Amino acid sequence: MAKNLIIGQSGGPTAVINSSLAGVIDHVLASDKIDKVYGMINGVEGLLEDNVVNLSSMFEHMPHEVNRLKHSPAMFLGSCRYKLSGSDSEFEKIFEIFKKYDIGYVIYTGGNDSMDTVKKLSDYASKNAIDIKVVGIPKTVDNDLQGIDHSPGFGSAAKYIATCVRNVAYDTSIYSIKSVHIIEAMGRNAGWLTAASVLARQDNMPAPHLVYMPEVPFSVEQFLSDVKAKLEEYNSVIVVVSEGIRDADGNYIAEGGCSQDGFGHAQLSGVGAYLKTVIEDEIGCKVRALEPSVLQRSAGHIASLCDVNEAFNLGTVAVKAAEEGKTGVFATLSRISDKPYCVKYSTERVEVVANAEKVVPRSWINAEGNDVTDEMVRYLKPLIRGVAQTPYRAGLPDYIDIRHLDIKKQRYTNED
Amino acid sequence: MAKNLIIGQSGGPTAVINSSLAGVIDHVLASDKIDKVYGMINGVEGLLEDNVVNLSSMFEHMPHEVNRLKHSPAMFLGSCRYKLSGSDSEFEKIFEIFKKYDIGYVIYTGGNDSMDTVKKLSDYASKNAIDIKVVGIPKTVDNDLQGIDHSPGFGSAAKYIATCVRNVAYDTSIYSIKSVHIIEAMGRNAGWLTAASVLARQDNMPAPHLVYMPEVPFSVEQFLSDVKAKLEEYNSVIVVVSEGIRDADGNYIAEGGCSQDGFGHAQLSGVGAYLKTVIEDEIGCKVRALEPSVLQRSAGHIASLCDVNEAFNLGTVAVKAAEEGKTGVFATLSRISDKPYCVKYSTERVEVVANAEKVVPRSWINAEGNDVTDEMVRYLKPLIRGVAQTPYRAGLPDYIDIRHLDIKKQRYTNED
Repeated sequence: MAKNLIIGQSGGPTAVINSSLAGVIDHVLASDKIDKVYGMINGVEGLLEDNVVNLSSMFEHMPHEVNRLKHSPAMFLGSCRYKLSGSDSEFEKIFEIFKKYDIGYVIYTGGNDSMDTVKKLSDYASKNAIDIKVVGIPKTVDNDLQGIDHSPGFGSAAKYIATCVRNVAYDTSIYSIKSVHIIEAMGRNAGWLTAASVLARQDNMPAPHLVYMPEVPFSVEQFLSDVKAKLEEYNSVIVVVSEGIRDADGNYIAEGGCSQDGFGHAQLSGVGAYLKTVIEDEIGCKVRALEPSVLQRSAGHIASLCDVNEAFNLGTVAVKAAEEGKTGVFATLSRISDKPYCVKYSTERVEVVANAEKVVPRSWINAEGNDVTDEMVRYLKPLIRGVAQTPYRAGLPDYIDIRHLDIKKQRYTNED
Repeated sequence: MAKNLIIGQSGGPTAVINSSLAGVIDHVLASDKIDKVYGMINGVEGLLEDNVVNLSSMFEHMPHEVNRLKHSPAMFLGSCRYKLSGSDSEFEKIFEIFKKYDIGYVIYTGGNDSMDTVKKLSDYASKNAIDIKVVGIPKTVDNDLQGIDHSPGFGSAAKYIATCVRNVAYDTSIYSIKSVHIIEAMGRNAGWLTAASVLARQDNMPAPHLVYMPEVPFSVEQFLSDVKAKLEEYNSVIVVVSEGIRDADGNYIAEGGCSQDGFGHAQLSGVGAYLKTVIEDEIGCKVRALEPSVLQRSAGHIASLCDVNEAFNLGTVAVKAAEEGKTGVFATLSRISDKPYCVKYSTERVEVVANAEKVVPRSWINAEGNDVTDEMVRYLKPLIRGVAQTPYRAGLPDYIDIRHLDIKKQRYTNED
């Protein structure tokens, strides 16, 4: 008799994690090999408390809602930051719950830590001769995972940052006074998102004018000199910096920004806010610091269609791998060509991705450390392509949340 | 013989000022009464330096570019913050330039100050028996203009803020820990944009949980008590505050936030950053402050279709009024009904809008001062409706900038 599948989501949100979930649900609903699809609420942490939902019964009578799920950001099933202790009692508890739901297949979506969870569960099953296949689906906006050409979630965050830069470039272009805008992109150790901001450049509108990534030691003096040079050429200069830029000794630039306000409250300002004060003091022109923060990882309304589709496909690839008996692997993709853009899907051992970080190669950053090379642009370009067909309702993106399914009937009344 | 028209743009940017310009160009290109349409570069400031472009020759051979202009944010012609001195010599200089270009019609887009410019130019022409009609087109993201149901530009900024809140609500919903997100919306004196954030609410996802507008005196004690109460009910609490909230004595809450960082640089933190420290100190949960800043006024990619179309129509209404001999007026709209949403276009004397500010009526804010009433929601709902068909290219909004028209040929080569 066909076994069931259970899926969990873990780590930080992206715009397309739910697209991978939609790919899994879509495949299971049509599969002969797998009966039901269950979901862990809040990943393995919820699983340990038997917090499990039946996704088959949620979606089988409304397959169109799978499409809405495909375009909803964050995590339909909720997340956790729980690391398995590795104790026998914990494993026994988890596999008891798997037994209760007659699970034959486990899918886990997340970053490095989640791939470590995949490895532990897979190893435990093998060691104890339990017939459960465990497969991972990667995700991260930071694009710092090994073993995959680019991470699902990165393309959409990249599109968000590039769109921000373009909008700010238009906003600031209207005045003839000198100004600097500093946009702080996510990325503690890897500058991929900062690099992607260069896609905003148009003929005769070269914003961002400067980009600084954590892979190159940051010098405040060089930064000031770079900004001054650009201000001679342009009225409005736009700079993108990674949150994690560090000086030559490896100290975070932003750590200097710890301060107290008038009420004695401690404030830890970001690197953008700090560099703003540096320019105000040393150059004296108008400066704004913008920190899109979580907006860059949750922007379902501006998701990359390429990213949405690849995340969906990786969901399908993961289930198929499990059906074929693979375990301890994650679904991945490699690039066949940039132009036309073409990728090939496969699986890879999770050891490749766990405990490793992919940073930007120094050769993809220019010699001065304030721009990227053409090779980087060729790599990035296809990843933000295509406008996702986000459903809208009453003027806003009509995302789906698990809480909505309790009140389904209301959704189909004639709302205003 | 038919006279020419000149148009200028002034003040801060919005997503739809160029849609009004597109409406004007579209009408003039088909008009028998008006020959050419010229543009002032950087408003009256550029006009005084004879910085004028021929928009007819730019657009007459590529009317499809008028549609692209309709969906491009900020100001195609550039802006200024110049206030006419009122001196005879200045007026003489301006009207000499009008004579040089055989101008019979002047259109000026902007807020209160720009409507004052319309009045001064119109009065001067009348007093000196010069046959030039001067008509205004209103714009502001703040929605604080008198004499119009709502300002063009507001609906798109409102949609941006509501979309931000929805995205953040999904982003934060995935964890089961307690957290507060504070989103700071534009509006020094008027809380309209903050109010519009409530449109993000969905069944079972009631973010924003609290909103604070400048029209009600702000108490930090009451704020803490409100947040504590919401944290008892929800894991994740989302608060939207206007940048201009003040205490009972009229002092801006954010002014307390002036501080020095570790290097002795002065920092003026926004009200969101300040309230973040207050919650951290007094409640102690995880807090993030988000300040979308200029992103909320320049977000052409998420413009309200209702707003884009109304701005376009107001452009047409302004030119027709000028053709009919009206002067010293601005194009306006009044609401016929909320449902179905219906507006009527007309003109109004500029005196109505100059030197006045429309704030949120106290009766549209709840008694506690931390939410809006149903009347406010009815007013706001239609204004964010419809998804604008922003043109995209290579995955990003394909806006038009005046600099692009110099390099037009390149645009039609086969780009990668």
